[in-house]
Amino acid sequence: MAIKSFHPPQRILMGPGPSDVSPRVLEAMSRPTLGHLDPVFVSMMDEMKELLKYAFQTKNELTMPVSAPGSAGMETCFVNLVEPGDKVIVCQNGVFGGRMKENVERCGGIAVMVQDDWGRAVDLQKVEDALKANPDTKVVAFVHAETSTGAQSDAKNLVALAHKHGCLTIVDAVTSLAGSPLKVDEWAIDAIYSGTQKCLSCTPGLSPVSFGERALEKIKNRKNKVQSWFLDLNLVMSYWGGSTKRAYHHTAPINSLYGLHEALVILQEEGLENSWARHQKNHLALRAGLEAMGLNFVVPESERLPQLNALTIPEGVDDALVRATLLNDYQLEIGAGLGVMAGKVWRIGLMGHASNKRNILVCLGALDDVLGRVKAPVQLGVAVAAAQKVLEN
Amino acid sequence: MAIKSFHPPQRILMGPGPSDVSPRVLEAMSRPTLGHLDPVFVSMMDEMKELLKYAFQTKNELTMPVSAPGSAGMETCFVNLVEPGDKVIVCQNGVFGGRMKENVERCGGIAVMVQDDWGRAVDLQKVEDALKANPDTKVVAFVHAETSTGAQSDAKNLVALAHKHGCLTIVDAVTSLAGSPLKVDEWAIDAIYSGTQKCLSCTPGLSPVSFGERALEKIKNRKNKVQSWFLDLNLVMSYWGGSTKRAYHHTAPINSLYGLHEALVILQEEGLENSWARHQKNHLALRAGLEAMGLNFVVPESERLPQLNALTIPEGVDDALVRATLLNDYQLEIGAGLGVMAGKVWRIGLMGHASNKRNILVCLGALDDVLGRVKAPVQLGVAVAAAQKVLEN
Repeated sequence: MAIKSFHPPQRILMGPGPSDVSPRVLEAMSRPTLGHLDPVFVSMMDEMKELLKYAFQTKNELTMPVSAPGSAGMETCFVNLVEPGDKVIVCQNGVFGGRMKENVERCGGIAVMVQDDWGRAVDLQKVEDALKANPDTKVVAFVHAETSTGAQSDAKNLVALAHKHGCLTIVDAVTSLAGSPLKVDEWAIDAIYSGTQKCLSCTPGLSPVSFGERALEKIKNRKNKVQSWFLDLNLVMSYWGGSTKRAYHHTAPINSLYGLHEALVILQEEGLENSWARHQKNHLALRAGLEAMGLNFVVPESERLPQLNALTIPEGVDDALVRATLLNDYQLEIGAGLGVMAGKVWRIGLMGHASNKRNILVCLGALDDVLGRVKAPVQLGVAVAAAQKVLEN
Repeated sequence: MAIKSFHPPQRILMGPGPSDVSPRVLEAMSRPTLGHLDPVFVSMMDEMKELLKYAFQTKNELTMPVSAPGSAGMETCFVNLVEPGDKVIVCQNGVFGGRMKENVERCGGIAVMVQDDWGRAVDLQKVEDALKANPDTKVVAFVHAETSTGAQSDAKNLVALAHKHGCLTIVDAVTSLAGSPLKVDEWAIDAIYSGTQKCLSCTPGLSPVSFGERALEKIKNRKNKVQSWFLDLNLVMSYWGGSTKRAYHHTAPINSLYGLHEALVILQEEGLENSWARHQKNHLALRAGLEAMGLNFVVPESERLPQLNALTIPEGVDDALVRATLLNDYQLEIGAGLGVMAGKVWRIGLMGHASNKRNILVCLGALDDVLGRVKAPVQLGVAVAAAQKVLEN
């Protein structure tokens, strides 16, 4: 065995995440490691909490990054808020609603599924019907921005509906945070989790979460211990909590946190509203190019996420071949379909640092070339110009 | 709010971990992010598995890093191997045995505790007595290298004893991996977890684990689903498993994995046995200096870990003041006591990249200065020379 150092190629990441990471974030990750109880590090943790509160638009004291990827953030919400026997309404309109169901059941809860077509927003009426049919429901869980389809649901009104029926809410904001409007306090979301590798343009591996007062009340009054020691917020709070004395729980991923801190400083410099507007504008430019080629969006316009564009793969086109050619010839990664959409859609992300003019033009130009080579039934040579027209406005 | 980029000072990390990280590892973490299903990244994952197999001295196919810190590696072992009602003998001789008990109980298992004094190895006779008294025991769990005390237990014979009684073994090797002899296959360990921030000298955040055939058999024949979706090895294997087709489970922490890959390449270049020998030699030099000053080790010599030196704080010395002065004046971090040892011991790590001559001399010289300032009852001005004598041999 003589394995050498690993030197990855420089890709352009326009899949469903990870997205392109800012060089500032990558550099931050290589700064000197500190101890997890070093007073200088602890002051960085305080800043991190402030920065995350800004990103989530919340004053929740319990706002912090879980030391593991978004899936662990999801699990943090469920294991802390769902006790055995609790009924949870889970809205499924893509892959991640299914994962929520798994979480509920592994906590001993009862999942009542509200199904919507993949590629559509969650239907408020169906949720209201389920709430009426299940008056003993404790929690309503839904995905704000479905990463598997690019559909956006009406978080504000879903939360209002859940509260009307006395339920807590768990919201998946993995793909929405920093990419499209999300207001935790104004919308009164009780528990929310996100990821670092989408519109924050940080490397993957951490999951920002935030819990409001109603959620904390439930956690403090649990009858049973949280089934996960690692994700038990009663314990995690002793390290990330508001007190000046931090108690050791687990060793924090120091350098990954440097990266997230820098990504959040960049977001603060740009301004949250400006970031949302940038994602929206760049989406419109990409959309103009894709539609000029004749490609069709999966999600109806009013329910579309600007940061994740799901497209129907044209008839007769070899999905894997096109993606491999983009990767090998252009170092460009776009996403495949997930679950029932595998082989049927492409997912083109314009997330965070990757949501920029250069990427839009490279992506459209490369698609133009590669779809031409495989003789796809699309209009060639028009995409870049259509996008440029929007970008110039 | 106007929070600036975070620029940490350059510390010397000689606590219980994180330890000093090699500049090569830090640089690796800042390389361009790849997608988690990129074929180039997948080939890196294959190399990672080979490198980890070497570090663990195993041929176990299921050898990989969990995408979260050591505590999550511990939880991975317990949630996959312990089912409700299972009896588990947990050996406790420090903080981490207590954490194992928490894990067993949160899995619905029954923990039978075998208690030893903190600072001592696990007593084989007590474990045998417990096994005889509890013939329905399914698993024996113990800590190979207790990070809270610096004591090393006889993993080889503990595993043999457990197997004689038909039990599986879960071994905590967070602090031992790469720092002192550890042979997973030769000792027939069934399930083992470690951390990246100790003797691998990588940044914290990942937990290398390895599972042998008996453990896999148990996992495949479980009656109940694993209570954690994130840590369910049946699912994780679809991404990290042997097949060439990798299925998405969660988004891997790409850049942290670059760091671990580089740390393991460095270990391979040095050679595992050479790394063990270096830790031992540097321990002897540090010990000579500390003993020349008149400081006393907590752990008897035959049970001492070379990579973690726990010392009794001399009578009348202000623990927090000494550590703060070392940190502020010398940028040197040493560890405080944990649990019942808080305020009573210091833990000086010589782990991985931090186990080197320069650190030994700086540590002894700085201690000499600071203990002199607080008028500690120790012999001053002799420590560095005593260490140098050993280093010269």
